Amino acid sequence: MNKQEKKLLSGKPVAARILNFCAESIAKRLSAGLAAPGLAIVRVGANEEDLAYETRILRDCSKIGIRPVTFSLPATISAGEFIVHIQKLNQDPSVQGILVFRPLPEHLDTDEIAHSIAPEKDVDCMNPINLKKLITGDRSAVLPCTPEAVIEILKHYGHNLSGRNVVIVNRSLVLGKPLALMLLNENATPTICHSRTVDLKKITRKADIVVVGVGQACYFDGTFFAPESIVIDVGINTKEDGSMSGDLDFEDVAPVVDAVTPVPGGVGAVTTAVLLRHVVNAMEAGNFSKNPEYSCTSSCSSI
Amino acid sequence: MNKQEKKLLSGKPVAARILNFCAESIAKRLSAGLAAPGLAIVRVGANEEDLAYETRILRDCSKIGIRPVTFSLPATISAGEFIVHIQKLNQDPSVQGILVFRPLPEHLDTDEIAHSIAPEKDVDCMNPINLKKLITGDRSAVLPCTPEAVIEILKHYGHNLSGRNVVIVNRSLVLGKPLALMLLNENATPTICHSRTVDLKKITRKADIVVVGVGQACYFDGTFFAPESIVIDVGINTKEDGSMSGDLDFEDVAPVVDAVTPVPGGVGAVTTAVLLRHVVNAMEAGNFSKNPEYSCTSSCSSI
Repeated sequence: MNKQEKKLLSGKPVAARILNFCAESIAKRLSAGLAAPGLAIVRVGANEEDLAYETRILRDCSKIGIRPVTFSLPATISAGEFIVHIQKLNQDPSVQGILVFRPLPEHLDTDEIAHSIAPEKDVDCMNPINLKKLITGDRSAVLPCTPEAVIEILKHYGHNLSGRNVVIVNRSLVLGKPLALMLLNENATPTICHSRTVDLKKITRKADIVVVGVGQACYFDGTFFAPESIVIDVGINTKEDGSMSGDLDFEDVAPVVDAVTPVPGGVGAVTTAVLLRHVVNAMEAGNFSKNPEYSCTSSCSSI
Repeated sequence: MNKQEKKLLSGKPVAARILNFCAESIAKRLSAGLAAPGLAIVRVGANEEDLAYETRILRDCSKIGIRPVTFSLPATISAGEFIVHIQKLNQDPSVQGILVFRPLPEHLDTDEIAHSIAPEKDVDCMNPINLKKLITGDRSAVLPCTPEAVIEILKHYGHNLSGRNVVIVNRSLVLGKPLALMLLNENATPTICHSRTVDLKKITRKADIVVVGVGQACYFDGTFFAPESIVIDVGINTKEDGSMSGDLDFEDVAPVVDAVTPVPGGVGAVTTAVLLRHVVNAMEAGNFSKNPEYSCTSSCSSI
């Protein structure tokens, strides 16, 4: 790895390595005469971010041989109907993973729906059983994809986590909280910051590694970091000119830190790969149908 | 509150206030002709720490009118027998709270047993449903008693948590992890330290509040803290001379910090009170029997 590669923590080789592992596992299955694994993507409505993520997933599925089925549910769906839908997917032996896009519309009880997903098919850690494994540090847990992608990138580029001070600027259930818990398993020392943190800059400047996810383009300039900082940008924002940006003012930050992820081409690409690895892991765990016919027809794609 | 009281964060008035609240609630129930709430304490074997905790619980139960029943189970009990026992308690309308002492012997699957406790009777947050509420920040969660006691003490003495940097030296499921999650709900900025943290002293000296729980008598001397530090000692250790000590070298620490909890008479007393408040809350939530006869006889006390 040259100096430039060490400084720019591109997600692309990380994602490629993971997808390659997935493709090999699936090829072995197929050569044994078994069916490819299936991923059910359940989306309510059609917001732009969800559609962009879905497009990435579908592209990567086709690269490696996972059979995706997208279910686009109407925004008026009742919780009861939603759960019946999930239960069918739970019972469908051709579906190894179920991904429900969040946040769900307010009239739906996310908890109730999360609980209805079979834990072994819950590829983005929504079911309480998997959340419990996350908090207890059970290494059999299916982890939330975004924080797992952050750790994958750091490890790929040889950044040891044990004993490092890691500051996370995000306290959500999909990033800050699970990442802090996962970092404890790696023997790192995590600090969770947020909008009410006092003198954030003082805290980020002293960390070895800073993970930002505030959802505001160019929120962090170079003054938030030190020359030895390793910075992971989880933000995905659309700027006024329509271009994509992370939370960092990248041009300002990149020259002053030790290493930084780009957006696009950073955490996002790895998140998708990690999600698909969860599907392959579910397949490897035996959550797999010997019937190559996919039991859910295209008529399922909207209910 | 005088200067001395502000400096010594005694748990006694905090526990007294909570127990007083409990006693009033129970008295109202009794005056309405209803039965007192019941707490089932399930212990395997008889280690010294468990027995000391149990003694404190029984003492406080008798003060406020909770009916405790202790179940001392043999160390040879099977998981199946244990769960049958829990299921009986789940169904017993005279039991509002179930406390299982941890850690359990290695041959028992703690996860499986935790899962078997009815969430509404799970007064120390073992069931995955309650752990999930903890991580999602659901304010209806029954919280683990020790971290809740830490927050009670800080609030009682007027220490605002919002925007404060809180360093926790413990990463366990009964203290560090849940406390960090609970502090996020209070808008504090938590850092979780542990045995692999590098230069711990540098981190603790910069915090506004430090919570220690390493289980080693006199581990922390005054050099770990700053004059403005507020220090909460969760350790309960028995010294060679048989006396009880926290994790602090109290005589060395107390003169150099802004405020500190003593041991004994600090967090421990409040933990017991918080536990009993959970029983009273379960009673208030309607998880209550109108039958004043306690259905479980003394023959239940060992199986």
